[in-house]
Amino acid sequence: MRFHTRKWIKPEDLNPNGTLFGGKLLAWIDEEAALYSIIQLENQNTVTKYMSEIDFKSSATQGDIIEIGIEVVKFGNASLALKCEVRNKMTRQTIIKIDKIVMVSLDKEGNTKPHGKIKVEFVKDRLGDS
Amino acid sequence: MRFHTRKWIKPEDLNPNGTLFGGKLLAWIDEEAALYSIIQLENQNTVTKYMSEIDFKSSATQGDIIEIGIEVVKFGNASLALKCEVRNKMTRQTIIKIDKIVMVSLDKEGNTKPHGKIKVEFVKDRLGDS
Amino acid sequence: MRFHTRKWIKPEDLNPNGTLFGGKLLAWIDEEAALYSIIQLENQNTVTKYMSEIDFKSSATQGDIIEIGIEVVKFGNASLALKCEVRNKMTRQTIIKIDKIVMVSLDKEGNTKPHGKIKVEFVKDRLGDS
Amino acid sequence: MRFHTRKWIKPEDLNPNGTLFGGKLLAWIDEEAALYSIIQLENQNTVTKYMSEIDFKSSATQGDIIEIGIEVVKFGNASLALKCEVRNKMTRQTIIKIDKIVMVSLDKEGNTKPHGKIKVEFVKDRLGDS
Amino acid sequence: MRFHTRKWIKPEDLNPNGTLFGGKLLAWIDEEAALYSIIQLENQNTVTKYMSEIDFKSSATQGDIIEIGIEVVKFGNASLALKCEVRNKMTRQTIIKIDKIVMVSLDKEGNTKPHGKIKVEFVKDRLGDS
Amino acid sequence: MRFHTRKWIKPEDLNPNGTLFGGKLLAWIDEEAALYSIIQLENQNTVTKYMSEIDFKSSATQGDIIEIGIEVVKFGNASLALKCEVRNKMTRQTIIKIDKIVMVSLDKEGNTKPHGKIKVEFVKDRLGDS
Repeated sequence: MRFHTRKWIKPEDLNPNGTLFGGKLLAWIDEEAALYSIIQLENQNTVTKYMSEIDFKSSATQGDIIEIGIEVVKFGNASLALKCEVRNKMTRQTIIKIDKIVMVSLDKEGNTKPHGKIKVEFVKDRLGDS
Repeated sequence: MRFHTRKWIKPEDLNPNGTLFGGKLLAWIDEEAALYSIIQLENQNTVTKYMSEIDFKSSATQGDIIEIGIEVVKFGNASLALKCEVRNKMTRQTIIKIDKIVMVSLDKEGNTKPHGKIKVEFVKDRLGDS
Repeated sequence: MRFHTRKWIKPEDLNPNGTLFGGKLLAWIDEEAALYSIIQLENQNTVTKYMSEIDFKSSATQGDIIEIGIEVVKFGNASLALKCEVRNKMTRQTIIKIDKIVMVSLDKEGNTKPHGKIKVEFVKDRLGDS
Repeated sequence: MRFHTRKWIKPEDLNPNGTLFGGKLLAWIDEEAALYSIIQLENQNTVTKYMSEIDFKSSATQGDIIEIGIEVVKFGNASLALKCEVRNKMTRQTIIKIDKIVMVSLDKEGNTKPHGKIKVEFVKDRLGDS
Repeated sequence: MRFHTRKWIKPEDLNPNGTLFGGKLLAWIDEEAALYSIIQLENQNTVTKYMSEIDFKSSATQGDIIEIGIEVVKFGNASLALKCEVRNKMTRQTIIKIDKIVMVSLDKEGNTKPHGKIKVEFVKDRLGDS
Repeated sequence: MRFHTRKWIKPEDLNPNGTLFGGKLLAWIDEEAALYSIIQLENQNTVTKYMSEIDFKSSATQGDIIEIGIEVVKFGNASLALKCEVRNKMTRQTIIKIDKIVMVSLDKEGNTKPHGKIKVEFVKDRLGDS
């Protein structure tokens, strides 16, 4: 699993008990899943369709740095199944794990649209970078 | 199921495709589950422990009004299991359903703490209102 | 008066003195008045025109849960007059009361538009739900 | 009346109809009244107690620049009465006027605290700037 | 230099160390430079092109009031060079200084567009106010 | 340069002209520089002290995905000099470059504190992960 996006827990991210607000964490995961899928499927109109069960294993507090990891589970016809783990950057303790997030590729009218992708691609390869 | 909190979809709630950002919706659900549990368990230190799978059935767009419903599934010893539905207020179309959200009551040290509740209570009854 | 929307006071809602920022509270009230009116008048283009005097009776602090109540005062030709009370959910202590909030129904050009409503309607009745 | 703080209307400030969200405007006014009072009363623990009726005269749209004006109406013993006008910076059209906003000076325990001020002071005079 | 916009440091503006988050401050400065330029150049499509080096001289904490000053350095053909200082309103201590912020006037296609301005103008003079 | 954090440009990130608000971008860069430094210096109390000049080379629009890259320039005694590039993830077009961002390590009293670091370290090595 590759961990890209990192977040620094600020006061605006806390629930009233002073720990990371779970809803904020879910919003960050949803954004990460969406942008990962858009990069892979090369279609900006990609939406979240399903998330499997979510277990909040540990929390984070103000000043902690967390990182969000995404890995492809399966390329479908018009969908992409991902798994996700969020962990504390400094201790590597797992905060949350989601086994399956299904993203779906849509056309302009909002109908599912086959994306023609079958494996993970890197932008540098598409662009022919060395 | 009782529907209380309502949201009016504003530009700040949209994803780049112009529909309700799923992450925002999850954050709203998490807040609603937390405050519902705090009211029932009479313990502010109540946190989200688990969410069962989430199916995004339909979306919402700018200007829509949605409402969030919560219902108790089961009172545990230190936990409370809820189910949740979010629907469009005007059409009653379901946007999302979550069969089980487990909230846990904690003490000051962050350990689980039995809450002693066995059924839904209304604040007016606690306060002796007519 | 019916109380629907609930808010959980988080760090992001506080003023620098650690109590609920009055401006945030007014924003929540304005949103609630708008969405209540849109539901009743069945016109998304409904705007706030007037608020009568506002007395801040008590405040709220981090972790408190508040609920916002709205009641119809009068249906006008193109307007709807509401009253509003915000109270602490757990203690029922009043935080703020506004005797009159006038919402106005507009057409696409921004001119007032008669709404044809004369009494409170429930969405379930409009939809023919049992 | 002196106009200080200016705001540039961004997408995040709009209601779903694409005009400035009234609640956002009220939040900005409340912040401006608070900071103006803190400067005058030299007490950070100053809170909003009362606002007289509010008439929304015109609105603003994305890209507009507005400015918020505050003027002292009266120094009380522990209070300060202000009036406020918000207008479009480029056209000077009035957006909102509030005749009376009462701010109250508090001590650490939250009780009213006489502030000893009787007229508007400028920070440069306090600091002995030329 | 004229200081207009003021900000009251709230919990949502802090970094995890409890001082004003530098990124928030930079965002406020960018907004102020943009709106100042739009007023002067009378073109809403004015964007930030360059900022000279930034020295964070001091910070601010929750409850502080800061003010943002802008002064014109030079009118270019399609550009406007500004300088900026942010200081603590109560102590006048400098928080940040930026010697040069270059704003550029664009046309609808995003190309630079001469603005025809050569000196600072006041809106009241444009409107013929006394 | 390693690119970690990614952002998906949403309506709330736009200026009124519909392109990425420069202030938001600066805030994201500041957060990334801070968290990168905290990871390297193993001191949460690390603050931004200086940024060299900033050239806004291109912009981004709603739906774009950008990535933020950070590279160490030099380890000082109590400081860490970084450089930063933000680019469009899909096209690799540069949006902004900052040659030098100086972060400073502080102790509890806010005085500079030597950090004892001389080269980039990876968390996995510190933790002894394979």
